[in-house]
Amino acid sequence: MKIGIVFGAQSFEHEISVVSAIALKKILKHDIIYIFCDYQREFYLIPTDKINSKRFSSGEYKKDKALTLRHGGFFQKKTFGESLVECDVIINLVHGRDGEDGKISSLFDFYGISYIGPRTEGSCISYNKLLTKLYAKEVGVNVLAYQVLYKHKKEPINIKPPFIVKPLCLGSSIGIGIVKDESQIDYALDVAFEFDNAVLIEPFLQGVKEYNLAGCKTDKFLFSIVEEPHKEEFLDFDKKYLDFSRTKRVNEATIDTTLELKMKEAFQTLYDPLFLGALIRCDFFVIESEVYLNEINPIPGSMANYLFDDFNMVITELSKNLPSCVTVPAQYRYINSIQAAKGK
Amino acid sequence: MKIGIVFGAQSFEHEISVVSAIALKKILKHDIIYIFCDYQREFYLIPTDKINSKRFSSGEYKKDKALTLRHGGFFQKKTFGESLVECDVIINLVHGRDGEDGKISSLFDFYGISYIGPRTEGSCISYNKLLTKLYAKEVGVNVLAYQVLYKHKKEPINIKPPFIVKPLCLGSSIGIGIVKDESQIDYALDVAFEFDNAVLIEPFLQGVKEYNLAGCKTDKFLFSIVEEPHKEEFLDFDKKYLDFSRTKRVNEATIDTTLELKMKEAFQTLYDPLFLGALIRCDFFVIESEVYLNEINPIPGSMANYLFDDFNMVITELSKNLPSCVTVPAQYRYINSIQAAKGK
Repeated sequence: MKIGIVFGAQSFEHEISVVSAIALKKILKHDIIYIFCDYQREFYLIPTDKINSKRFSSGEYKKDKALTLRHGGFFQKKTFGESLVECDVIINLVHGRDGEDGKISSLFDFYGISYIGPRTEGSCISYNKLLTKLYAKEVGVNVLAYQVLYKHKKEPINIKPPFIVKPLCLGSSIGIGIVKDESQIDYALDVAFEFDNAVLIEPFLQGVKEYNLAGCKTDKFLFSIVEEPHKEEFLDFDKKYLDFSRTKRVNEATIDTTLELKMKEAFQTLYDPLFLGALIRCDFFVIESEVYLNEINPIPGSMANYLFDDFNMVITELSKNLPSCVTVPAQYRYINSIQAAKGK
Repeated sequence: MKIGIVFGAQSFEHEISVVSAIALKKILKHDIIYIFCDYQREFYLIPTDKINSKRFSSGEYKKDKALTLRHGGFFQKKTFGESLVECDVIINLVHGRDGEDGKISSLFDFYGISYIGPRTEGSCISYNKLLTKLYAKEVGVNVLAYQVLYKHKKEPINIKPPFIVKPLCLGSSIGIGIVKDESQIDYALDVAFEFDNAVLIEPFLQGVKEYNLAGCKTDKFLFSIVEEPHKEEFLDFDKKYLDFSRTKRVNEATIDTTLELKMKEAFQTLYDPLFLGALIRCDFFVIESEVYLNEINPIPGSMANYLFDDFNMVITELSKNLPSCVTVPAQYRYINSIQAAKGK
């Protein structure tokens, strides 16, 4: 099976995506085709044997073959006409904007391209932390208390410090800060508002247990191990950045079966049907034996490969079980009947 | 000002979009460029003086110039190279799928095209009637009670007849039915499930007042008149279809100032910032002097032109006040620092 990996794009997490893509080279046993989307959103075919981070930071990739996205896939110019870059499925590995906000899924759906990754609706819901909360509550999964603040509105903050401040629509810990007392509020808000016009505030619960669970649905649910990430207070972007190149297995969290079951139930409820076609990672908090959703990562760093016993099998199975769109029949029933009535 | 109108696409409302596009020819005083997206999602430049519904139903449009969407706009092939189809702004007039589900907005945002229409997040929220409810409740706008049913799950219905059954993600009254007593449930569900894997059920309130209000935000809010649609029990697709070609002014609803203010307040709350860049129509119910949101139409039929005193001014002003995206700076800060640390 040939897998195309699309990465990069106009995102604050562009570099993370590059690192994520390179990490998969060591892991995937499939044939890989690398399709780079640069900051200007131009696509390039990067030779798999020549992929390294310097190729992108130096601009050397601009000598690689430019690609055009159209019906059926990516095309490269030939002396006469064009040829399709053949691959069986594409992994959308663009973290953050473009990849996780619904743009790339929309492009792929519009042009009839088979891909692993969240669809547009799931993207919008996981990309916007407020929508994630509303959705989780609706399907019966617990979330922490929260408040949304907008840049241009002055509103009183209803949550007492310590609290955590997050840009509403960014991942990878970018712009996140912890407010321990009121003196730190202005600075934390300034930082977060640099990245977004809205921020989410949540109580910061010291010492609360956090667990990560990744998975997808093929003909059945395939789950990763449950990881208890080793964290300092929280991982900021610099620390988390290195985390995205991970390819080594982590230690499984020691949790009892009941708790693991609760997490898997919450995962399934959140996943099906909204995230069909994607391999997602859910980050949970556990408070007094109850599971709370922290975040949904619909395109986790290096696809959370290090959490799976057999990552290659998961990717192969998922490729075979991608959701299909209903085809709208091409018809002009109403127009024809009006024309008939008019005697045209 | 030159306005491009994109219409058609892979949508159950394709024909409505054709009718909507043709209706605007009589109304808009701007130069119009017609860009048709056919059921196969291929774009064509339709000569403005030759636009009529038969051109599409007969397939004659296939003789018109094919267009390709790329950075900066739509391009047509010339003997040597390509040329850009120049226009100042595009109106996304694709009703239903592709246009209102976030695909076309994503394409336009990805390729840097200036357009009137909902952005991807607003599209997803208004396209899915459950998300509309969750969003409206969150921002403090009333909605009717509801229940979502899924095709493959057997769940008891908690709402007593009479109730209305709607496919979760379709507009223009397609697949909608009223259940007056329990004997009608199976049929109504079968019809709705033909169009979607999920349906929304709401109590059917006989004789409740319904009002439509359209508008957009430029440097200030521009509102239409409030219309009280003349309806039979409800408009089904066949009846509503004809409604989309409307270009004549309607009669203003006779309502008191307090109620009108309440509707405008609800509209503003729902609109800003989620629908910036779009001209939307909100359909409200009024029950015991309180305003309830029924639906948000982010691309109303023929842009609800018939509700505005000066529709051309509204379109001109809106074109000048479209939201802009934050540009992510192209940088390789982390990759460079890692390379430096490695001594590469």
